[in-house]
Amino acid sequence: MTDPYDDATPRRPLDLAGLQRRLADFAAARDWQPYHTPKNLAAALSVESSELLEIFQWLTPEESARVMDDPDTAHRVTDEVADVLAYLLQLCEVLGVDPLGALAAKIDRNEHRFPAGRPDHGSP
Amino acid sequence: MTDPYDDATPRRPLDLAGLQRRLADFAAARDWQPYHTPKNLAAALSVESSELLEIFQWLTPEESARVMDDPDTAHRVTDEVADVLAYLLQLCEVLGVDPLGALAAKIDRNEHRFPAGRPDHGSP
Amino acid sequence: MTDPYDDATPRRPLDLAGLQRRLADFAAARDWQPYHTPKNLAAALSVESSELLEIFQWLTPEESARVMDDPDTAHRVTDEVADVLAYLLQLCEVLGVDPLGALAAKIDRNEHRFPAGRPDHGSP
Amino acid sequence: MTDPYDDATPRRPLDLAGLQRRLADFAAARDWQPYHTPKNLAAALSVESSELLEIFQWLTPEESARVMDDPDTAHRVTDEVADVLAYLLQLCEVLGVDPLGALAAKIDRNEHRFPAGRPDHGSP
Repeated sequence: MTDPYDDATPRRPLDLAGLQRRLADFAAARDWQPYHTPKNLAAALSVESSELLEIFQWLTPEESARVMDDPDTAHRVTDEVADVLAYLLQLCEVLGVDPLGALAAKIDRNEHRFPAGRPDHGSP
Repeated sequence: MTDPYDDATPRRPLDLAGLQRRLADFAAARDWQPYHTPKNLAAALSVESSELLEIFQWLTPEESARVMDDPDTAHRVTDEVADVLAYLLQLCEVLGVDPLGALAAKIDRNEHRFPAGRPDHGSP
Repeated sequence: MTDPYDDATPRRPLDLAGLQRRLADFAAARDWQPYHTPKNLAAALSVESSELLEIFQWLTPEESARVMDDPDTAHRVTDEVADVLAYLLQLCEVLGVDPLGALAAKIDRNEHRFPAGRPDHGSP
Repeated sequence: MTDPYDDATPRRPLDLAGLQRRLADFAAARDWQPYHTPKNLAAALSVESSELLEIFQWLTPEESARVMDDPDTAHRVTDEVADVLAYLLQLCEVLGVDPLGALAAKIDRNEHRFPAGRPDHGSP
Protein backbone atom coordinates (compact mmCIF):
# COMPACT_ATOMS: atom_id res chain seq x y z
CA MET A 1 0.00 0.00 0.00
CA THR A 2 1.28 3.47 -0.76
CA ASP A 3 1.28 5.98 2.04
CA PRO A 4 -1.16 8.69 0.98
CA TYR A 5 0.92 11.29 2.79
CA ASP A 6 4.35 10.20 1.61
CA ASP A 7 4.53 12.36 -1.48
CA ALA A 8 4.85 15.95 -2.61
CA THR A 9 1.23 16.89 -2.02
CA PRO A 10 0.39 18.88 1.10
CA ARG A 11 0.78 16.50 4.00
CA ARG A 12 -1.77 17.68 6.50
CA PRO A 13 -5.30 18.16 5.28
CA LEU A 14 -6.61 20.43 7.99
CA ASP A 15 -10.21 19.36 7.88
CA LEU A 16 -11.94 17.12 10.36
CA ALA A 17 -12.63 14.29 7.91
CA GLY A 18 -8.99 14.20 6.79
CA LEU A 19 -7.74 14.05 10.37
CA GLN A 20 -10.29 11.37 11.22
CA ARG A 21 -8.94 9.34 8.30
CA ARG A 22 -5.35 9.80 9.45
CA LEU A 23 -6.30 8.58 12.93
CA ALA A 24 -8.01 5.50 11.53
CA ASP A 25 -4.98 4.71 9.32
CA PHE A 26 -2.68 5.26 12.30
CA ALA A 27 -4.59 2.81 14.50
CA ALA A 28 -4.91 0.24 11.70
CA ALA A 29 -1.15 0.34 10.96
CA ARG A 30 -0.47 -0.55 14.60
CA ASP A 31 -3.23 -3.20 14.92
CA TRP A 32 -4.94 -1.16 17.62
CA GLN A 33 -8.51 -1.68 16.38
CA PRO A 34 -9.25 -4.47 18.91
CA TYR A 35 -8.67 -1.93 21.70
CA HIS A 36 -10.89 0.64 20.03
CA THR A 37 -14.28 -0.57 21.20
CA PRO A 38 -16.78 2.26 21.69
CA LYS A 39 -16.63 1.66 25.43
CA ASN A 40 -12.83 1.92 25.60
CA LEU A 41 -12.77 5.02 23.40
CA ALA A 42 -15.46 6.67 25.55
CA ALA A 43 -13.35 5.92 28.64
CA ALA A 44 -10.22 7.31 26.95
CA LEU A 45 -12.11 10.45 25.89
CA SER A 46 -13.22 10.96 29.48
CA VAL A 47 -9.69 10.38 30.80
CA GLU A 48 -8.17 12.88 28.36
CA SER A 49 -10.82 15.48 29.19
CA SER A 50 -9.83 15.11 32.83
CA GLU A 51 -6.17 15.61 31.95
CA LEU A 52 -7.19 18.89 30.35
CA LEU A 53 -9.20 19.84 33.45
CA GLU A 54 -6.22 18.96 35.65
CA ILE A 55 -4.33 21.94 34.21
CA PHE A 56 -7.04 24.27 35.53
CA GLN A 57 -8.07 22.59 38.77
CA TRP A 58 -6.28 24.85 41.27
CA LEU A 59 -6.45 28.08 39.25
CA THR A 60 -8.69 31.03 39.99
CA PRO A 61 -11.02 32.03 37.16
CA GLU A 62 -8.65 34.90 36.37
CA GLU A 63 -5.56 32.69 36.30
CA SER A 64 -7.39 30.22 34.08
CA ALA A 65 -7.95 33.03 31.54
CA ARG A 66 -4.18 33.51 31.27
CA VAL A 67 -2.97 29.92 30.84
CA MET A 68 -1.82 30.54 27.29
CA ASP A 69 0.63 33.26 28.41
CA ASP A 70 3.05 30.62 29.65
CA PRO A 71 4.56 28.70 26.70
CA ASP A 72 4.90 25.41 28.59
CA THR A 73 1.33 25.48 29.83
CA ALA A 74 0.10 26.59 26.41
CA HIS A 75 1.81 23.58 24.85
CA ARG A 76 0.32 21.26 27.45
CA VAL A 77 -3.18 22.68 26.88
CA THR A 78 -2.84 22.36 23.10
CA ASP A 79 -1.60 18.80 23.44
CA GLU A 80 -4.54 17.77 25.64
CA VAL A 81 -7.01 19.46 23.28
CA ALA A 82 -5.54 17.31 20.51
CA ASP A 83 -5.97 14.15 22.61
CA VAL A 84 -9.60 14.93 23.40
CA LEU A 85 -10.39 15.63 19.74
CA ALA A 86 -8.51 12.50 18.65
CA TYR A 87 -10.55 10.19 20.88
CA LEU A 88 -13.80 11.96 20.03
CA LEU A 89 -13.14 11.47 16.31
CA GLN A 90 -12.12 7.85 16.77
CA LEU A 91 -15.25 7.18 18.82
CA CYS A 92 -17.37 8.78 16.09
CA GLU A 93 -15.57 6.67 13.49
CA VAL A 94 -16.34 3.34 15.16
CA LEU A 95 -19.94 4.37 15.91
CA GLY A 96 -20.67 5.90 12.51
CA VAL A 97 -21.61 9.23 14.11
CA ASP A 98 -21.11 12.47 12.14
CA PRO A 99 -19.77 14.91 14.76
CA LEU A 100 -20.39 18.08 12.75
CA GLY A 101 -23.93 17.04 11.86
CA ALA A 102 -24.58 16.11 15.48
CA LEU A 103 -23.40 19.51 16.69
CA ALA A 104 -25.34 21.44 14.04
CA ALA A 105 -28.53 19.61 15.00
CA LYS A 106 -27.88 20.29 18.69
CA ILE A 107 -27.36 24.02 18.12
CA ASP A 108 -30.63 24.10 16.16
CA ARG A 109 -32.45 22.46 19.05
CA ASN A 110 -30.87 24.74 21.62
CA GLU A 111 -31.85 27.85 19.65
CA HIS A 112 -35.44 26.70 20.08
CA ARG A 113 -35.07 25.67 23.72
CA PHE A 114 -33.24 28.81 24.83
CA PRO A 115 -34.46 31.71 22.69
CA ALA A 116 -32.14 34.73 22.85
CA GLY A 117 -33.44 37.82 24.65
CA ARG A 118 -35.31 35.92 27.36
CA PRO A 119 -34.12 36.55 30.90
CA ASP A 120 -34.97 33.09 32.22
CA HIS A 121 -31.86 31.14 31.38
CA GLY A 122 -29.37 32.91 33.52
CA SER A 123 -26.66 30.28 33.31
CA PRO A 124 -25.46 27.86 30.62
CA MET B 1 -28.13 43.39 15.14
CA THR B 2 -29.07 41.26 12.17
CA ASP B 3 -29.10 37.53 12.62
CA PRO B 4 -26.40 36.21 10.30
CA TYR B 5 -28.41 33.05 9.69
CA ASP B 6 -31.80 34.67 9.12
CA ASP B 7 -31.54 35.01 5.35
CA ALA B 8 -31.58 32.96 2.18
CA THR B 9 -28.01 31.71 2.44
CA PRO B 10 -27.40 28.17 3.64
CA ARG B 11 -28.14 28.12 7.37
CA ARG B 12 -25.82 25.51 8.74
CA PRO B 13 -22.25 25.65 7.54
CA LEU B 14 -21.10 22.14 8.38
CA ASP B 15 -17.49 22.98 9.00
CA LEU B 16 -15.83 23.26 12.35
CA ALA B 17 -15.10 26.98 12.12
CA GLY B 18 -18.70 27.77 11.17
CA LEU B 19 -20.05 25.76 14.10
CA GLN B 20 -17.56 27.37 16.45
CA ARG B 21 -18.84 30.76 15.31
CA ARG B 22 -22.46 29.74 15.86
CA LEU B 23 -21.61 28.61 19.39
CA ALA B 24 -19.89 31.92 20.15
CA ASP B 25 -22.87 33.89 18.78
CA PHE B 26 -25.23 31.67 20.77
CA ALA B 27 -23.42 32.32 24.05
CA ALA B 28 -23.04 36.05 23.35
CA ALA B 29 -26.77 36.45 22.61
CA ARG B 30 -27.54 34.98 26.05
CA ASP B 31 -24.81 36.87 27.94
CA TRP B 32 -23.17 33.62 28.92
CA GLN B 33 -19.57 34.76 28.34
CA PRO B 34 -18.93 35.46 32.05
CA TYR B 35 -19.55 31.76 32.75
CA HIS B 36 -17.27 30.67 29.94
CA THR B 37 -13.92 30.92 31.67
CA PRO B 38 -11.41 28.33 30.44
CA LYS B 39 -11.67 26.57 33.79
CA ASN B 40 -15.46 26.29 33.66
CA LEU B 41 -15.44 25.12 30.05
CA ALA B 42 -12.79 22.50 30.84
CA ALA B 43 -14.99 21.28 33.72
CA ALA B 44 -18.06 21.20 31.45
CA LEU B 45 -16.12 19.30 28.77
CA SER B 46 -15.10 16.73 31.37
CA VAL B 47 -18.65 16.43 32.69
CA GLU B 48 -20.09 15.90 29.20
CA SER B 49 -17.44 13.30 28.38
CA SER B 50 -18.52 11.42 31.47
CA GLU B 51 -22.15 11.58 30.40
CA LEU B 52 -21.07 9.90 27.17
CA LEU B 53 -19.13 7.28 29.13
CA GLU B 54 -22.16 6.68 31.35
CA ILE B 55 -24.00 5.18 28.37
CA PHE B 56 -21.31 2.51 28.09
CA GLN B 57 -20.37 1.89 31.71
CA TRP B 58 -22.21 -1.40 32.32
CA LEU B 59 -21.97 -2.78 28.77
CA THR B 60 -19.72 -5.61 27.65
CA PRO B 61 -17.30 -4.72 24.84
CA GLU B 62 -19.63 -6.54 22.43
CA GLU B 63 -22.73 -4.69 23.63
CA SER B 64 -20.86 -1.39 23.37
CA ALA B 65 -20.22 -2.13 19.68
CA ARG B 66 -23.98 -2.35 19.07
CA VAL B 67 -25.20 0.80 20.85
CA MET B 68 -26.27 2.45 17.60
CA ASP B 69 -28.71 -0.37 16.82
CA ASP B 70 -31.18 1.02 19.34
CA PRO B 71 -32.63 4.33 18.08
CA ASP B 72 -33.05 5.84 21.55
CA THR B 73 -29.52 5.00 22.60
CA ALA B 74 -28.18 6.16 19.22
CA HIS B 75 -29.88 9.52 19.74
CA ARG B 76 -28.49 9.81 23.24
CA VAL B 77 -24.96 8.99 22.02
CA THR B 78 -25.20 11.52 19.19
CA ASP B 79 -26.47 14.17 21.56
CA GLU B 80 -23.61 13.64 24.01
CA VAL B 81 -21.06 13.69 21.17
CA ALA B 82 -22.47 17.09 20.21
CA ASP B 83 -22.14 18.35 23.79
CA VAL B 84 -18.53 17.22 24.04
CA LEU B 85 -17.63 18.84 20.72
CA ALA B 86 -19.50 22.02 21.68
CA TYR B 87 -17.55 22.52 24.89
CA LEU B 88 -14.26 21.58 23.24
CA LEU B 89 -14.82 24.22 20.54
CA GLN B 90 -15.89 26.84 23.05
CA LEU B 91 -12.82 26.13 25.17
CA CYS B 92 -10.61 26.45 22.08
CA GLU B 93 -12.37 29.72 21.21
CA VAL B 94 -11.67 31.40 24.56
CA LEU B 95 -8.09 30.07 24.65
CA GLY B 96 -7.25 30.88 21.03
CA VAL B 97 -6.32 27.24 20.33
CA ASP B 98 -6.76 25.84 16.80
CA PRO B 99 -8.14 22.34 17.40
CA LEU B 100 -7.44 21.00 13.91
CA GLY B 101 -3.89 22.33 13.89
CA ALA B 102 -3.34 20.89 17.38
CA LEU B 103 -4.52 17.46 16.28
CA ALA B 104 -2.51 17.49 13.04
CA ALA B 105 0.65 18.36 14.99
CA LYS B 106 -0.08 15.61 17.51
CA ILE B 107 -0.56 12.97 14.82
CA ASP B 108 2.75 14.05 13.27
CA ARG B 109 4.48 13.63 16.62
CA ASN B 110 2.85 10.26 17.28
CA GLU B 111 3.92 8.96 13.87
CA HIS B 112 7.48 9.58 14.98
CA ARG B 113 7.02 8.24 18.51
CA PHE B 114 5.18 5.08 17.48
CA PRO B 115 6.48 4.01 14.06
CA ALA B 116 4.19 1.52 12.33
CA GLY B 117 5.48 -2.03 11.97
CA ARG B 118 7.25 -2.13 15.32
CA PRO B 119 5.98 -4.74 17.77
CA ASP B 120 6.76 -2.76 20.91
CA HIS B 121 3.64 -0.66 21.30
CA GLY B 122 1.11 -3.36 21.88
CA SER B 123 -1.61 -1.12 23.23
CA PRO B 124 -2.75 2.43 22.47
CA MET C 1 -24.10 -17.39 60.03
CA THR C 2 -26.47 -14.90 61.55
CA ASP C 3 -27.42 -11.84 59.57
CA PRO C 4 -26.04 -8.89 61.55
CA TYR C 5 -28.97 -6.74 60.41
CA ASP C 6 -31.77 -9.23 60.96
CA ASP C 7 -32.44 -8.49 64.60
CA ALA C 8 -33.43 -5.80 67.02
CA THR C 9 -30.01 -4.13 67.23
CA PRO C 10 -29.42 -0.85 65.42
CA ARG C 11 -29.50 -1.54 61.70
CA ARG C 12 -26.92 0.82 60.29
CA PRO C 13 -23.39 0.47 61.60
CA LEU C 14 -21.85 3.76 60.52
CA ASP C 15 -18.38 2.49 59.85
CA LEU C 16 -16.81 2.01 56.46
CA ALA C 17 -16.48 -1.77 56.69
CA GLY C 18 -20.13 -2.16 57.67
CA LEU C 19 -21.28 -0.02 54.75
CA GLN C 20 -19.00 -1.90 52.38
CA ARG C 21 -20.63 -5.11 53.54
CA ARG C 22 -24.12 -3.71 53.02
CA LEU C 23 -23.17 -2.68 49.47
CA ALA C 24 -21.83 -6.15 48.69
CA ASP C 25 -24.99 -7.78 50.08
CA PHE C 26 -27.14 -5.34 48.11
CA ALA C 27 -25.40 -6.16 44.81
CA ALA C 28 -25.44 -9.92 45.52
CA ALA C 29 -29.17 -9.90 46.28
CA ARG C 30 -29.82 -8.36 42.85
CA ASP C 31 -27.32 -10.54 40.92
CA TRP C 32 -25.33 -7.49 39.93
CA GLN C 33 -21.87 -9.00 40.50
CA PRO C 34 -21.34 -9.78 36.77
CA TYR C 35 -21.56 -6.03 36.10
CA HIS C 36 -19.17 -5.21 38.89
CA THR C 37 -15.87 -5.79 37.13
CA PRO C 38 -13.09 -3.49 38.34
CA LYS C 39 -13.19 -1.72 34.98
CA ASN C 40 -16.92 -1.04 35.15
CA LEU C 41 -16.75 0.12 38.76
CA ALA C 42 -13.84 2.45 37.94
CA ALA C 43 -15.92 3.90 35.08
CA ALA C 44 -18.94 4.31 37.37
CA LEU C 45 -16.79 5.99 40.03
CA SER C 46 -15.52 8.44 37.44
CA VAL C 47 -19.04 9.11 36.14
CA GLU C 48 -20.38 9.79 39.65
CA SER C 49 -17.46 12.10 40.44
CA SER C 50 -18.36 14.09 37.36
CA GLU C 51 -21.97 14.31 38.47
CA LEU C 52 -20.68 15.86 41.68
CA LEU C 53 -18.50 18.27 39.70
CA GLU C 54 -21.48 19.19 37.51
CA ILE C 55 -23.11 20.87 40.51
CA PHE C 56 -20.14 23.25 40.76
CA GLN C 57 -19.17 23.75 37.13
CA TRP C 58 -20.65 27.23 36.52
CA LEU C 59 -20.24 28.56 40.08
CA THR C 60 -17.69 31.12 41.17
CA PRO C 61 -15.36 30.00 43.97
CA GLU C 62 -17.47 32.06 46.39
CA GLU C 63 -20.76 30.55 45.22
CA SER C 64 -19.25 27.07 45.47
CA ALA C 65 -18.51 27.74 49.15
CA ARG C 66 -22.22 28.34 49.79
CA VAL C 67 -23.79 25.34 48.04
CA MET C 68 -24.99 23.82 51.29
CA ASP C 69 -27.11 26.91 52.08
CA ASP C 70 -29.74 25.77 49.59
CA PRO C 71 -31.52 22.65 50.86
CA ASP C 72 -32.13 21.19 47.39
CA THR C 73 -28.52 21.64 46.32
CA ALA C 74 -27.31 20.35 49.69
CA HIS C 75 -29.35 17.21 49.20
CA ARG C 76 -28.02 16.75 45.68
CA VAL C 77 -24.42 17.18 46.86
CA THR C 78 -24.91 14.70 49.70
CA ASP C 79 -26.48 12.20 47.34
CA GLU C 80 -23.59 12.41 44.87
CA VAL C 81 -21.04 12.10 47.69
CA ALA C 82 -22.80 8.87 48.66
CA ASP C 83 -22.63 7.58 45.08
CA VAL C 84 -18.92 8.31 44.79
CA LEU C 85 -18.17 6.59 48.11
CA ALA C 86 -20.39 3.64 47.17
CA TYR C 87 -18.52 2.94 43.94
CA LEU C 88 -15.14 3.52 45.57
CA LEU C 89 -15.96 0.96 48.28
CA GLN C 90 -17.34 -1.52 45.76
CA LEU C 91 -14.21 -1.16 43.63
CA CYS C 92 -12.04 -1.73 46.70
CA GLU C 93 -14.12 -4.77 47.57
CA VAL C 94 -13.63 -6.51 44.22
CA LEU C 95 -9.93 -5.59 44.12
CA GLY C 96 -9.16 -6.47 47.73
CA VAL C 97 -7.84 -2.96 48.41
CA ASP C 98 -8.09 -1.53 51.94
CA PRO C 99 -9.10 2.11 51.35
CA LEU C 100 -8.21 3.36 54.84
CA GLY C 101 -4.83 1.66 54.81
CA ALA C 102 -4.17 3.03 51.31
CA LEU C 103 -4.96 6.57 52.42
CA ALA C 104 -2.93 6.32 55.64
CA ALA C 105 0.11 5.13 53.66
CA LYS C 106 -0.36 7.94 51.15
CA ILE C 107 -0.53 10.62 53.84
CA ASP C 108 2.66 9.19 55.36
CA ARG C 109 4.41 9.43 52.00
CA ASN C 110 3.13 12.95 51.36
CA GLU C 111 4.35 14.13 54.74
CA HIS C 112 7.82 13.13 53.61
CA ARG C 113 7.48 14.52 50.08
CA PHE C 114 5.99 17.87 51.12
CA PRO C 115 7.42 18.78 54.52
CA ALA C 116 5.42 21.50 56.26
CA GLY C 117 7.09 24.87 56.64
CA ARG C 118 8.83 24.83 53.26
CA PRO C 119 7.80 27.58 50.86
CA ASP C 120 8.36 25.54 47.69
CA HIS C 121 5.05 23.77 47.29
CA GLY C 122 2.79 26.72 46.73
CA SER C 123 -0.15 24.75 45.41
CA PRO C 124 -1.61 21.35 46.21
CA MET D 1 -2.51 23.14 70.68
CA THR D 2 -0.87 19.77 71.13
CA ASP D 3 -0.26 17.69 68.09
CA PRO D 4 -2.37 14.54 68.59
CA TYR D 5 0.20 12.51 66.66
CA ASP D 6 3.32 13.89 68.30
CA ASP D 7 3.54 11.40 71.09
CA ALA D 8 4.08 7.76 71.84
CA THR D 9 0.57 6.59 70.97
CA PRO D 10 -0.01 4.81 67.68
CA ARG D 11 0.33 7.40 64.94
CA ARG D 12 -2.20 6.34 62.36
CA PRO D 13 -5.77 5.93 63.54
CA LEU D 14 -7.26 3.87 60.72
CA ASP D 15 -10.73 5.28 60.87
CA LEU D 16 -12.25 7.69 58.40
CA ALA D 17 -12.61 10.58 60.84
CA GLY D 18 -9.00 10.29 61.94
CA LEU D 19 -7.75 10.31 58.35
CA GLN D 20 -10.00 13.25 57.53
CA ARG D 21 -8.42 15.12 60.42
CA ARG D 22 -4.90 14.28 59.25
CA LEU D 23 -5.75 15.58 55.77
CA ALA D 24 -7.11 18.85 57.19
CA ASP D 25 -4.01 19.30 59.36
CA PHE D 26 -1.80 18.50 56.38
CA ALA D 27 -3.44 21.15 54.19
CA ALA D 28 -3.47 23.73 56.99
CA ALA D 29 0.25 23.23 57.71
CA ARG D 30 1.00 24.06 54.05
CA ASP D 31 -1.47 26.97 53.75
CA TRP D 32 -3.40 25.13 51.07
CA GLN D 33 -6.88 26.04 52.35
CA PRO D 34 -7.35 28.89 49.82
CA TYR D 35 -7.06 26.30 47.03
CA HIS D 36 -9.52 23.98 48.72
CA THR D 37 -12.77 25.54 47.59
CA PRO D 38 -15.56 23.00 47.12
CA LYS D 39 -15.37 23.59 43.37
CA ASN D 40 -11.64 22.91 43.19
CA LEU D 41 -11.89 19.82 45.37
CA ALA D 42 -14.75 18.47 43.25
CA ALA D 43 -12.60 19.00 40.15
CA ALA D 44 -9.63 17.28 41.81
CA LEU D 45 -11.82 14.36 42.88
CA SER D 46 -13.01 13.97 39.30
CA VAL D 47 -9.46 14.17 37.95
CA GLU D 48 -8.20 11.52 40.39
CA SER D 49 -11.12 9.22 39.57
CA SER D 50 -10.12 9.47 35.93
CA GLU D 51 -6.53 8.60 36.77
CA LEU D 52 -7.88 5.44 38.38
CA LEU D 53 -10.01 4.70 35.31
CA GLU D 54 -6.98 5.26 33.07
CA ILE D 55 -5.39 2.11 34.51
CA PHE D 56 -8.35 0.07 33.21
CA GLN D 57 -9.23 1.86 29.97
CA TRP D 58 -7.71 -0.57 27.46
CA LEU D 59 -8.19 -3.77 29.49
CA THR D 60 -10.74 -6.46 28.77
CA PRO D 61 -13.16 -7.21 31.62
CA GLU D 62 -11.10 -10.32 32.38
CA GLU D 63 -7.79 -8.45 32.41
CA SER D 64 -9.34 -5.81 34.67
CA ALA D 65 -10.16 -8.52 37.20
CA ARG D 66 -6.46 -9.43 37.43
CA VAL D 67 -4.87 -5.98 37.87
CA MET D 68 -3.76 -6.73 41.41
CA ASP D 69 -1.65 -9.69 40.25
CA ASP D 70 1.04 -7.31 38.99
CA PRO D 71 2.77 -5.58 41.93
CA ASP D 72 3.44 -2.33 40.04
CA THR D 73 -0.13 -2.02 38.83
CA ALA D 74 -1.44 -3.01 42.26
CA HIS D 75 0.61 -0.21 43.81
CA ARG D 76 -0.66 2.27 41.22
CA VAL D 77 -4.28 1.24 41.84
CA THR D 78 -3.88 1.53 45.60
CA ASP D 79 -2.27 4.93 45.25
CA GLU D 80 -5.09 6.26 43.08
CA VAL D 81 -7.72 4.85 45.46
CA ALA D 82 -6.00 6.84 48.20
CA ASP D 83 -6.10 10.02 46.10
CA VAL D 84 -9.80 9.63 45.35
CA LEU D 85 -10.63 9.02 49.01
CA ALA D 86 -8.41 11.93 50.08
CA TYR D 87 -10.22 14.45 47.88
CA LEU D 88 -13.63 13.03 48.76
CA LEU D 89 -12.89 13.44 52.47
CA GLN D 90 -11.49 16.94 51.99
CA LEU D 91 -14.56 17.95 49.97
CA CYS D 92 -16.81 16.58 52.72
CA GLU D 93 -14.76 18.48 55.29
CA VAL D 94 -15.19 21.89 53.65
CA LEU D 95 -18.87 21.24 52.92
CA GLY D 96 -19.74 19.79 56.32
CA VAL D 97 -21.06 16.58 54.74
CA ASP D 98 -20.88 13.32 56.71
CA PRO D 99 -19.82 10.75 54.08
CA LEU D 100 -20.78 7.66 56.10
CA GLY D 101 -24.18 9.08 57.01
CA ALA D 102 -24.75 10.08 53.38
CA LEU D 103 -23.96 6.58 52.18
CA ALA D 104 -26.05 4.85 54.85
CA ALA D 105 -29.05 7.02 53.91
CA LYS D 106 -28.51 6.27 50.22
CA ILE D 107 -28.39 2.52 50.78
CA ASP D 108 -31.62 2.78 52.78
CA ARG D 109 -33.29 4.61 49.90
CA ASN D 110 -31.97 2.17 47.31
CA GLU D 111 -33.27 -0.80 49.30
CA HIS D 112 -36.72 0.72 48.90
CA ARG D 113 -36.28 1.72 45.25
CA PHE D 114 -34.81 -1.61 44.12
CA PRO D 115 -36.31 -4.36 46.29
CA ALA D 116 -34.33 -7.61 46.08
CA GLY D 117 -35.98 -10.52 44.28
CA ARG D 118 -37.65 -8.43 41.60
CA PRO D 119 -36.54 -9.17 38.04
CA ASP D 120 -37.03 -5.64 36.74
CA HIS D 121 -33.70 -4.03 37.56
CA GLY D 122 -31.44 -6.08 35.37
CA SER D 123 -28.46 -3.76 35.58
CA PRO D 124 -27.01 -1.51 38.28
